[in-house]
Amino acid sequence: MEVALNLDPLSPIALYRQIYDGLRDGIIGERFEGGTRLPASRAFAASLGVSRITVTECYERLISEGYLETRRGSGTFVCSRLPERDLYASGITAEAPPQLHADVPMRLSRYGEIVNAPIRPPTPPEIIRCDRHGPDVSLFPNKLWARLWARRMQEGAENLLQYTQEYSGNNDLRVAIAQYLRKSRAVVCDPSQVIITSGSQQAIYLTARIFLDPSDYVALETPGYLFAGRIFASQSAKLLPIPVDRHGMQVSQLKKHREKSVKLVYITPSHQYPRGVSLSISRRMELLDWAKDTGTLIFEDDYDSEYRYNERPLPSIQGMVPDAPVLYVGTFSKLLFPTLRLGYLVVPPALHNVFTGAKLLCDFQSSSIDQRILADFMAEGHLEPHVRKMRIIYGNRRALLAESLQKHFGRKVTILGDHAGMHFLADFQINLSEEDAFARALAAGVRVERVYWPAGSSVQRPGHVQFVFAFASLSENNILLATERLAQALLV
Amino acid sequence: MEVALNLDPLSPIALYRQIYDGLRDGIIGERFEGGTRLPASRAFAASLGVSRITVTECYERLISEGYLETRRGSGTFVCSRLPERDLYASGITAEAPPQLHADVPMRLSRYGEIVNAPIRPPTPPEIIRCDRHGPDVSLFPNKLWARLWARRMQEGAENLLQYTQEYSGNNDLRVAIAQYLRKSRAVVCDPSQVIITSGSQQAIYLTARIFLDPSDYVALETPGYLFAGRIFASQSAKLLPIPVDRHGMQVSQLKKHREKSVKLVYITPSHQYPRGVSLSISRRMELLDWAKDTGTLIFEDDYDSEYRYNERPLPSIQGMVPDAPVLYVGTFSKLLFPTLRLGYLVVPPALHNVFTGAKLLCDFQSSSIDQRILADFMAEGHLEPHVRKMRIIYGNRRALLAESLQKHFGRKVTILGDHAGMHFLADFQINLSEEDAFARALAAGVRVERVYWPAGSSVQRPGHVQFVFAFASLSENNILLATERLAQALLV
Repeated sequence: MEVALNLDPLSPIALYRQIYDGLRDGIIGERFEGGTRLPASRAFAASLGVSRITVTECYERLISEGYLETRRGSGTFVCSRLPERDLYASGITAEAPPQLHADVPMRLSRYGEIVNAPIRPPTPPEIIRCDRHGPDVSLFPNKLWARLWARRMQEGAENLLQYTQEYSGNNDLRVAIAQYLRKSRAVVCDPSQVIITSGSQQAIYLTARIFLDPSDYVALETPGYLFAGRIFASQSAKLLPIPVDRHGMQVSQLKKHREKSVKLVYITPSHQYPRGVSLSISRRMELLDWAKDTGTLIFEDDYDSEYRYNERPLPSIQGMVPDAPVLYVGTFSKLLFPTLRLGYLVVPPALHNVFTGAKLLCDFQSSSIDQRILADFMAEGHLEPHVRKMRIIYGNRRALLAESLQKHFGRKVTILGDHAGMHFLADFQINLSEEDAFARALAAGVRVERVYWPAGSSVQRPGHVQFVFAFASLSENNILLATERLAQALLV
Repeated sequence: MEVALNLDPLSPIALYRQIYDGLRDGIIGERFEGGTRLPASRAFAASLGVSRITVTECYERLISEGYLETRRGSGTFVCSRLPERDLYASGITAEAPPQLHADVPMRLSRYGEIVNAPIRPPTPPEIIRCDRHGPDVSLFPNKLWARLWARRMQEGAENLLQYTQEYSGNNDLRVAIAQYLRKSRAVVCDPSQVIITSGSQQAIYLTARIFLDPSDYVALETPGYLFAGRIFASQSAKLLPIPVDRHGMQVSQLKKHREKSVKLVYITPSHQYPRGVSLSISRRMELLDWAKDTGTLIFEDDYDSEYRYNERPLPSIQGMVPDAPVLYVGTFSKLLFPTLRLGYLVVPPALHNVFTGAKLLCDFQSSSIDQRILADFMAEGHLEPHVRKMRIIYGNRRALLAESLQKHFGRKVTILGDHAGMHFLADFQINLSEEDAFARALAAGVRVERVYWPAGSSVQRPGHVQFVFAFASLSENNILLATERLAQALLV
């Protein structure tokens, strides 16, 4: 092909650019048709009076952009399929909206198949939610938090914005957490054992990944905590539901499964979820002895242990004996606000490396800024007063909700569990199925929470229906209104 | 046993409490010895002149706390093993530091074994880091960010602090991202296809979980991106390294593996990591055709596509054809600051549910506050000016680093790849092993980045050593200093 280009050596536009533009315009304008062969770079350069490298670079660039192509041994050709014409997105306008990707291969992994379950639709705002397990964030000292935040963003924000090398989490925060746990929960730990996670959810998730292979056994309380069960099940682990009575998990039942080689026991000993009881000291010792004996790890989820109303605080299992095979877990979602997404694990030193590695791979690190502000919040002594204040408020809400339910339901309702935590389980003596009762409550404008029985091990008594009530974030008004609505819906 | 308790009916302390305290003090003070049997509740209540239920509740509580135990059919006894004596943590003082958990069972899962690799120790601050792939956060408009933040924390913080029901991420942010991508990257998408993740790292991680079963094949560029390779390998997937040349991944090589049923192709088409080239349009079409044909998903990691210096912007693969089987991924780590931990996936509608489910299980959600502020930042038009400003600065740094290396190394150095991105690959013609050269550079105070060859497929030429240089966050001074130190270390 004869390629005539008008080059202007005096133009401010570089020769390279003039050649590139000339060729590209010619190709787009179809002056040079698809399939035509370009002159060899040496000859072309000579004809234009430029160095060969200038031409080679132009060719290379046009090749990489899809205007030219090379065929081994036979030179450089104009592509017949041009990038501009192939750009589907370039034809989209407001009038011609994109055609969405309709069919795509769904070759999911086993994990993908499991997590591809329907996701619960949002609850409309007019429904009173007794299933929302957060704290009352309207009472969070957000002005104080904002002040701490602004101070850090003014001085030395740079360190907070760049990747950290503190892979297990902000060091000051880990020191503050270790101090707090030693003092208030009798946890035996050094800051080096603390791993910061994005909420306790991530702590459960990482633990499941690190320890559970498909078909491994994991024991958990029944009734229990839905998301723990879901996470374990998503690993294709086998759930071993262990019944709970007034003294917590029935450790004797757990011990019967010795031949199953249980890898992990998930337990909420301070305030069993959802029954609200605490694990007795003798069972704690029994559990620890058994775990040491069998090489099982105990996952101690201490999610709302700070809230005990007129009840003696219970120390952690983790601190009861030296070398306890315990992963101790807590969260700031219940103490401060859930969207902070900060929780922590306290792990035996031998497990520090594997947890740090798993966290790194999952999402590198949790927010450095939030970690820094939380460390300041704790170091300046704001955590404990806030918890003390909220303890009184939540205690009153618990009492009001219990009272109000009793006012409406009389002897047909029993509030189960300790005077503690941010939720309780209520037993209703009514002749409705759980399904029915739940739907009626929802239709009346109240969303209660159904009890989760891992592996379908439900043991509800006939004539009784139990629901969980998360009262901490409910205003007094909503407590009164919700109980009234419930009475109308369920007392039929 | 005779149990004498002095009750004071006129005391403000409830009778229940007086009985409880009296029994507990007696047990702790060893007035009531371990193993002794308590009177039956009915008789004890009569002797004290209180209701039986008061006594039963006291017994129950002391049982749950480990002071008493019941033996079936024979009554209630004082425990011989007392909680106070068993509390290991209670004996710990500053003088007697805790004995750390020395040996704990290491029964890790297959995944646990893989991620339990040594973690790189922190680099001391005096080392100039050419391996830090973040932006220059000192130029981030942190006062503007703080202003946006403060505004949201003042008005309606409540919504931002409580769990959201927007499971795939903040809706306003998803709208802003979809608009941005349609405009600047020719991505074909609707906000409903956007999933917010904690950085692009989490996007890779979730994708690996959702699609890869052990022994599934995943293709990735070689040389390539270390963390992608690590995440895929941690799923026990099989890595299929596909060589890269001047036009990007050699798609023809990929096509040879048809019988292997590749599930996923991980690719960085805008700016191949680390070689810095872009995938030619003809190869893009070839890849898309092949992927549609074989039912393979393309993971398009568009991590730093915004930075092209005097180069024509390249549109995404995702938008090239209708129904492209592409997961398009981007991150704000490179545009704003890495510790924001926000990235996103654009997925075909059919895959929206499974990604949302996987994200929920992993850590519920990313920070609501950060998502809200980022949405404001974008909606108010701050993103594009910031990117334009940084593009000039990074372009200059790229030029300075290239120049400065050439000044010291002359023809012994070649800078590879397009004039684009936040890093380049440099080829040094020196007679040192990579290991040696890396160690010498580090000893001289410069940490360069080694090239990652997935599955050990290194094809470095003898007499040549290649290193990655992340220049975006290097000051001019550090660029000059680093190149000087490198010359001294490597030109031997």
